[in-house]
Amino acid sequence: MKAEIIAVGSELLLGQISNTNARFISSQLAEIGIDVFFHTVVGDNPNRLLDSIKIAEERADLIIFTGGLGPTKDDLTKETISKHLNKKLVFDNNAMIFIEDFFKRINREMTENNKKQALVLEGCTVLENKHGMAPGMLLATKSHAYMLLPGPPKEMEPMFQFEAKPLLLKLLHNETVIMSHVIRFFGIGEAELETKVQDLLDNQTNPTLAPLASDGEVTLRLTAKSNTEKDAWQRIEALQAEILHRVGKFVYGYNNDSLASKLRDILIENELTISAAESMTAGLFQSELAAVPGMGEALVGGMITYTEDVKIKQLGVNEAIIKEFSVVSSQCAEEMAVRVKEKFNTNIGIGITGAAGPDGHGGQPAGTVWIGIAYGEMAPISYKLSLSGMRNTNRLRAVKFTIHYLIQLLREQGNARI
Amino acid sequence: MKAEIIAVGSELLLGQISNTNARFISSQLAEIGIDVFFHTVVGDNPNRLLDSIKIAEERADLIIFTGGLGPTKDDLTKETISKHLNKKLVFDNNAMIFIEDFFKRINREMTENNKKQALVLEGCTVLENKHGMAPGMLLATKSHAYMLLPGPPKEMEPMFQFEAKPLLLKLLHNETVIMSHVIRFFGIGEAELETKVQDLLDNQTNPTLAPLASDGEVTLRLTAKSNTEKDAWQRIEALQAEILHRVGKFVYGYNNDSLASKLRDILIENELTISAAESMTAGLFQSELAAVPGMGEALVGGMITYTEDVKIKQLGVNEAIIKEFSVVSSQCAEEMAVRVKEKFNTNIGIGITGAAGPDGHGGQPAGTVWIGIAYGEMAPISYKLSLSGMRNTNRLRAVKFTIHYLIQLLREQGNARI
Repeated sequence: MKAEIIAVGSELLLGQISNTNARFISSQLAEIGIDVFFHTVVGDNPNRLLDSIKIAEERADLIIFTGGLGPTKDDLTKETISKHLNKKLVFDNNAMIFIEDFFKRINREMTENNKKQALVLEGCTVLENKHGMAPGMLLATKSHAYMLLPGPPKEMEPMFQFEAKPLLLKLLHNETVIMSHVIRFFGIGEAELETKVQDLLDNQTNPTLAPLASDGEVTLRLTAKSNTEKDAWQRIEALQAEILHRVGKFVYGYNNDSLASKLRDILIENELTISAAESMTAGLFQSELAAVPGMGEALVGGMITYTEDVKIKQLGVNEAIIKEFSVVSSQCAEEMAVRVKEKFNTNIGIGITGAAGPDGHGGQPAGTVWIGIAYGEMAPISYKLSLSGMRNTNRLRAVKFTIHYLIQLLREQGNARI
Repeated sequence: MKAEIIAVGSELLLGQISNTNARFISSQLAEIGIDVFFHTVVGDNPNRLLDSIKIAEERADLIIFTGGLGPTKDDLTKETISKHLNKKLVFDNNAMIFIEDFFKRINREMTENNKKQALVLEGCTVLENKHGMAPGMLLATKSHAYMLLPGPPKEMEPMFQFEAKPLLLKLLHNETVIMSHVIRFFGIGEAELETKVQDLLDNQTNPTLAPLASDGEVTLRLTAKSNTEKDAWQRIEALQAEILHRVGKFVYGYNNDSLASKLRDILIENELTISAAESMTAGLFQSELAAVPGMGEALVGGMITYTEDVKIKQLGVNEAIIKEFSVVSSQCAEEMAVRVKEKFNTNIGIGITGAAGPDGHGGQPAGTVWIGIAYGEMAPISYKLSLSGMRNTNRLRAVKFTIHYLIQLLREQGNARI
C-alpha cells in the first residue's frame, strides 16, 4: 500500500509552523509497513486542494489529510472532498453531543459555526476525537482510502495511534512482523561510514539499511520483515554483526540511546562520579548530562570558569600555565580537569576550553577546542578539536566530543563494554 | 512570483526528521513577498523526483529544492535536474578547494565520493556553503528559476539568508517595500495576548498582524507594504504604539532579540557582572547566556551545585537552611544567590533550585522551581514557579523565567529601559 500525506493550512506555507504531523504519521506508517512516497502541503484554498487530491490519487492508494476540519470558513478539507467524491456531509450525533458538552463544561455559549465540526462524509467510519471537537474520518472507495485527521498535534496524534492505526492494520490484513533497529555512531562522518558499508546499502533488501546524519552523529536503521519476530530479529542480528565487524569502534549505542544516556549508564554501573570545569561551553556539558534523568548519583557539580580570573582564583589553575601556554591549550585543559576533580573530589574531572567563535580566543582561531580528562590515578590527557561551525554548533559539538572521548577512555580502561 | 519548495530525502518520508527547512524558507519568502503555494516532500528516487519537478513547473515560477546535494549515491537532486534541463554538471573550483581544505583541517582522508559535492549545474550562480561542503545553486531558465540548497539546516539557513535571499530580491525587481517587525513577549500566554488584541488581529490589513507561540514565548509579527520605507515604518510604528499601550509590560524585545541577548545588552550597558549557582538547571542558565556572543564582559562564571554536599562545601550554603527549609525552597535559592555573588565577586548572583521531574525533589513535586536573585546591596529576593512540562521543558522554562525576572528587576531598579 502506498500512502501520501496532504497537510492543509496556510500557516504551514507562511512558515509559522513546521509540518510535524507529516513526520509523526510517516513514522507510524513506517512501523506498520506502509510506504509513504510523498508529502504535500497546500493552503486553505479549495481549488489548489482539489488539484493536490487529484495528483495524490494518481500516485497513492491511501491519502491522509491533516488540518482544515475546524469551525472557521477557512476550514474546507471535508467540504472539498465531499464535492470531489460526490458524498454528502451528514451530522454525526456523537460528535454533536461531544461539542455541546464541551461548551457546557467550559461554560461558554456555543457559536453556530461550531456545529459544522460535527459534519462527516456520508458512509465514512468516524474516528473519535478525545482531545478536541472535530472528529476524524476514514472513507474507502473502490480505488482509494481517504483518511481525514484534525490539524492540532494534540488531537491528531492520539487519534492516529488509538483510532486510525488499528483501522489501517485491518485494511492491510497484515500478518507481517516489521522490526526496526537503530545503530548509533559518533566520530565517523556520514560519507566515510557509507563507504565502509556501501555493498550492504546497495544489496541488502531484508533487512533494509538506511543511514541518517544529524548534529554530528550518524545512525544506521535496520528494518526487517518476516512472519515471526524471532526470524526478523535473527535477520537484524546477522546484519548487525557484519556492521560491527567493520565499523564497531565508532558505535556508541542503539535505538533510543544518546551519548549522554550511554555515559550515564557507564558511570552508574561503575559507581563513578564526575565534575567539570567549563569555559567555552559555560555549563552546557553538565547541563546535557543533567538532561538525562538518573544522573544524580554520578554528576556532583562543577564550575563555569568563563574568565581567566575565575580559572585562577576559584578553580586554582596555576597562573604560570595560562601565561606560558594561553587559556586555550592542552596544558590549561588538563590543569582545569585535574583541579576540578580535586576540588569536587570525584573520580573523573573534565576541563573544556576553547574559542567558540565568531572570534578567536587565547591566541587560537575560532573553533579550536581543548578537552582535558583527569581519571583516577592516570596522568591527565587532552584532545584537540578544530571545528568549523557557528558558535553554538561548535559549543554543542565540543560537548558531544567530550562525552565520546570519555566513553572511549572508560572502555579502554576496562570500565565498560559496548 | 509563486514558489514551491521541494524537500528531497527518504528520511523525511520515514518520519525520522521534520521538514523544518520548508518552514524556514517559507517564513523567509513571506518576508520578501514571495507567495508559497505548495510544499512537496519526495524520497531519494530519481523518477519520483522528476515527477515532482514537472508538477511544480506547472504551478510555480520559482522551485526551491533542499537536500540531496551530499556525497552519497542517494544524493541525486542536481543529477536529476541536470538531466531534466539538459544542463551539464561541471566542477566548481572554489567548492573543490573548500572540500580539500576541510579534510586537511579535520585531519581525515577525503574519500573519492566527496568530490561529487563540488559538481554544479552549468551556467548557474553558485551559492557558497560556509558551514558544509555542498554548494548551493541558482539556475534561471526562460520560464523558471531553480534554486538548490543543501539539506542540513545548519548549512541551508545561513546560505539562504546571506546568499540566496539577496539574489531573489534581485530577481524580483521589486519596488514595493515590504517591512516586517516582530514584537517579543514573555510572561503572557498566547490566548490571553490574542484576546487583548483581537480587534487588531481581525481588522488590520496593512500592517497585517500575526501571532506565534513557541517555547513559552509569544511574538506578534507586523508586516507593512508601501511604496516607501518611510511610510511602511510609520504604519508599523502606529500599530506598535497601540499594542504597547495594551500589553507593553510583557514586551521584552524586538526582531532578533532573545531574552538572553536582551539581558546581555542591559548588563553590558550598565557594566554589571553576573554569576550563578545552578542545581536543577545544571549549567543551562549560564550556557544560554554564553550562547550569545559578547557576554564575556558580564558573565564571569559560577557553580553547578548538583548535590547537597557541593552546595554546602563548595558554595558555602548554610547547612541549617537546607535542614530547615529543604534544598528546594525560597531560602535555599536566595542563599545560593548570595553565596555565589560573594564568592565570584559579581554585581548579580543567581540561585536556581528545583525538581525538574519526572520525580519530585526536596519534598516538592516535579515542576517546582525557586529562583533567587541577589543584586547589589538589595536584600535577596526569590520567585516560585510551578511548571507542568517534561523534564527538559521545565529546565529551559526555568532558565527563561530567570532571565525574565532579572530583566524586570533591573528595569525596576532604573538600570534599563525597554
